[in-house]
Amino acid sequence: MKTYHIAVIPGDGIGKEVVPAAVKVLHTAAELHGGIKFEFTEFPWSCDFYIEHGKMMPDDGLEILKDYEAVFLGAVGNPRLVEDHVSLWGLLLKIRRGFEQVLNIRPAKYFKGLNSPLADPKNFDFVVVRENSEGEYSEVGGRIHKGEDEIAIQNAIFTRKGTERAMRYAFELAQKRNRRLTSATKSNGIFHTMPFWDEVFNELKADYPDVAVNSTHIDALSAFLVIKPELFDVIVASNLFGDILTDIGGAIMGSIGIAPSANINLNGKYPSMFEPVHGSAPDIAGKGIANPIGQIWTAKMMLDHFGETELGGKILEAVEWVIAKGIKTPDIGGTATTAEVTEAVCGRILEK
Amino acid sequence: MKTYHIAVIPGDGIGKEVVPAAVKVLHTAAELHGGIKFEFTEFPWSCDFYIEHGKMMPDDGLEILKDYEAVFLGAVGNPRLVEDHVSLWGLLLKIRRGFEQVLNIRPAKYFKGLNSPLADPKNFDFVVVRENSEGEYSEVGGRIHKGEDEIAIQNAIFTRKGTERAMRYAFELAQKRNRRLTSATKSNGIFHTMPFWDEVFNELKADYPDVAVNSTHIDALSAFLVIKPELFDVIVASNLFGDILTDIGGAIMGSIGIAPSANINLNGKYPSMFEPVHGSAPDIAGKGIANPIGQIWTAKMMLDHFGETELGGKILEAVEWVIAKGIKTPDIGGTATTAEVTEAVCGRILEK
Ligand SMILES: CC(C)[C@H](C(=O)O)[C@@H](O)C(=O)O
Ligand SMILES: CC(C)[C@H](C(=O)O)[C@@H](O)C(=O)O
Repeated sequence: MKTYHIAVIPGDGIGKEVVPAAVKVLHTAAELHGGIKFEFTEFPWSCDFYIEHGKMMPDDGLEILKDYEAVFLGAVGNPRLVEDHVSLWGLLLKIRRGFEQVLNIRPAKYFKGLNSPLADPKNFDFVVVRENSEGEYSEVGGRIHKGEDEIAIQNAIFTRKGTERAMRYAFELAQKRNRRLTSATKSNGIFHTMPFWDEVFNELKADYPDVAVNSTHIDALSAFLVIKPELFDVIVASNLFGDILTDIGGAIMGSIGIAPSANINLNGKYPSMFEPVHGSAPDIAGKGIANPIGQIWTAKMMLDHFGETELGGKILEAVEWVIAKGIKTPDIGGTATTAEVTEAVCGRILEK
Repeated sequence: MKTYHIAVIPGDGIGKEVVPAAVKVLHTAAELHGGIKFEFTEFPWSCDFYIEHGKMMPDDGLEILKDYEAVFLGAVGNPRLVEDHVSLWGLLLKIRRGFEQVLNIRPAKYFKGLNSPLADPKNFDFVVVRENSEGEYSEVGGRIHKGEDEIAIQNAIFTRKGTERAMRYAFELAQKRNRRLTSATKSNGIFHTMPFWDEVFNELKADYPDVAVNSTHIDALSAFLVIKPELFDVIVASNLFGDILTDIGGAIMGSIGIAPSANINLNGKYPSMFEPVHGSAPDIAGKGIANPIGQIWTAKMMLDHFGETELGGKILEAVEWVIAKGIKTPDIGGTATTAEVTEAVCGRILEK
């Protein structure tokens, strides 16, 4: 019997509802498998924690999390209690950075039964590999002068190493999928970093002759995801561009509430972290109607990461079946509760 | 009789076809008006010009253009002849910068008869005020080291002056429209510049108590333009964010081929420049089937800028009528030629 030790941080708002739902699904998946089990250790780090302790997590928080095989996060943030940049840089981004989770992987796909805003969404299915450690999100920069003379500077920093590992991961992912890779660029408007990004991409592509590549400017690419999302297989993008493209991915699926993400540590020194793309939605928290699908799909990504891809596939199949059946929370046009959707997913996993 | 002196740069590809079409529409509008006329002076600056002269325009190009009342541009770029960053920084961006065209204004609206990719596009109608002089498009930054040690740095630079003038213009535009203004931000992920952007916005809003404001992160905002574009009236955005949002605007209209833009000089020292959002589309150039609507709508923005708003309104009305009638080029699902669409627009302007 293999046991996976997982640190669980439900976080704020609906995180506290959807994380237990996904935990239940994971236990159900383990039951089906027979040969694995999950041991979850929960940490209450959140905006409430901040109110009590003046910090989003203890000073030795990363030390505490370090030896788990993965971190399973709900959602962070409650702007009524704590300013966003404090809550995010004090927890979410601290873990992403501290654990060298240098990539953020986010799939988007068409689901039958979801109300895509697109007239003809076709059967799109793509994955964005987002660089997650540098680029536009660097902490380098600052401000000078006050009042009418004030200037603020943000340095976007791209290293060869950071750029190359994101791209190689994306090329390899494309090889396992449909062998098409799109690089999100802006080398016609952003002078120093994006031409560099393109050069690295053009150099690396020689190593993956079986992958069909193309480079598209972020403005046009954002538009293409709305017009023809079915064209894409794997997209590799910088930190900011990946952030934008994945929210568009959520939008065209018909709900940002269902998109998952994986923050991947590549050097094996620290755990990876799995979190849905949605926020903490304080407005609907506590009502039992939060959509658990994003968190459940996130659990599937964690299983894939552990190499339990067959089990991961079962979860995704169950999710697709449940949505197609119309067992949906109100945010995606249904009347089911969080618990009902979760039950239905677990039921489907154990079926046959 | 008031005469407007306009410098015309058709540029590359389909620019050479759609600019003459829009010029024809402008002459027709003048004929209708009776009291104004246009004098156009054409400049052949383009990628072809580069091949011949090693530069996109003469060294004294800005000097030559300086005394015109406006620059009317087609499209720039032909990557088969000249690398994009050369053609753009050698002409388009040189004029935007040199003539202190510090704002870029881009409307997006629903057109009956256009095939929006949205299932239910409602009757959206918004304008993006894009900061056009600084931000992410600064020339500051560079690269160091080679090979695996290489690092590229791009400085995004936001000044109080640059930020404030874009926002005030947007507030005033909102006052003339439906009194709603959305600020595109990313203060939760981009550490130095976007919190500054938010502070300026929050300070200025006190001066415009009649405008309802909100700040939305660029990722969520990109998604909202797909999900509920009808929510928006005026959006103020940084250079890069505005670039992305306006391409999404084009996408949801059903064609990037019809979106116009105005590059506005605010200090009165230099002319403003009017150009469609679309590129030079070398693949369909020379076939007589380029869509002239973007360039014609751009002409309308130029008229508005001259204060000829009634005439501008006539052009837009004619465009809407022609599209609704189905007189459309192939890119938007019709069979009409550039000339036929142009004729129809002119005919409608002179009607009744
Ligand atoms: C060509 C490019 C530099 C330009 C920009 O990003 O500003 C274009 O995309 C635009 O929007 O006018
Ligand atoms: C909360 C914010 C900092 C974050 C990001 O931009 O990375 C979020 O939008 C995300 O995509 O996970």
